Amino acid sequence: MQPKCVDSHCRAFQTAIEVLGRPWTALILNVLQPGPRRFSEIGDGSEGLGDKVLSARLKDLEARGLVLRSVEPGPPVRVTYELTNKGRAFGQVAEAIERWGRELVSEEPPVRRKKSA
Amino acid sequence: MQPKCVDSHCRAFQTAIEVLGRPWTALILNVLQPGPRRFSEIGDGSEGLGDKVLSARLKDLEARGLVLRSVEPGPPVRVTYELTNKGRAFGQVAEAIERWGRELVSEEPPVRRKKSA
Repeated sequence: MQPKCVDSHCRAFQTAIEVLGRPWTALILNVLQPGPRRFSEIGDGSEGLGDKVLSARLKDLEARGLVLRSVEPGPPVRVTYELTNKGRAFGQVAEAIERWGRELVSEEPPVRRKKSA
Repeated sequence: MQPKCVDSHCRAFQTAIEVLGRPWTALILNVLQPGPRRFSEIGDGSEGLGDKVLSARLKDLEARGLVLRSVEPGPPVRVTYELTNKGRAFGQVAEAIERWGRELVSEEPPVRRKKSA
């Protein structure tokens, strides 16, 4: 059971974690940081990411207002994906999370302390 | 399938998301920010969080080196939990995630654009 959110801070936090917690989401947002990419270009940079999953994830991100899908009529039809402002703002979050993650993966062993009464 | 991490940035990021993605983790870290708390005090601040889940989550956090468990021999035995430096460092991450989350939950509707050729 997820925490019941009683305030907007909690809701904001949980929404962000819900988005980031989905596999490949952070990676896709990172690939799009430099500028618009075609579908196949996003997949190329991501070993192990299949077209079906990529397509679903891009739809999620579009629905969340993080990614913008543009269609240039063809032939051949050309579809590109780019970040919105919300999507670009993810860059700072990624940095903060990664900085903390580096501490988490560091080798420092946990300490268990026993206080005397 | 989660992305295969080929570099330490990705590993750091994924580890952090793995920790934060577990229900109640962020909330527990927040409750402990002001200072050491007893088991029952942590639960009191978190409506809907049962003792079993809280206990499991605290063990996770202890194993990750984020929380320190201290035992004062009794009777009555007194067990307290406090954040380590790694745990306290979460504060900045929480701020960045929440700031971004506020943008995500804002009402701005997603736009779909059609470019002319």
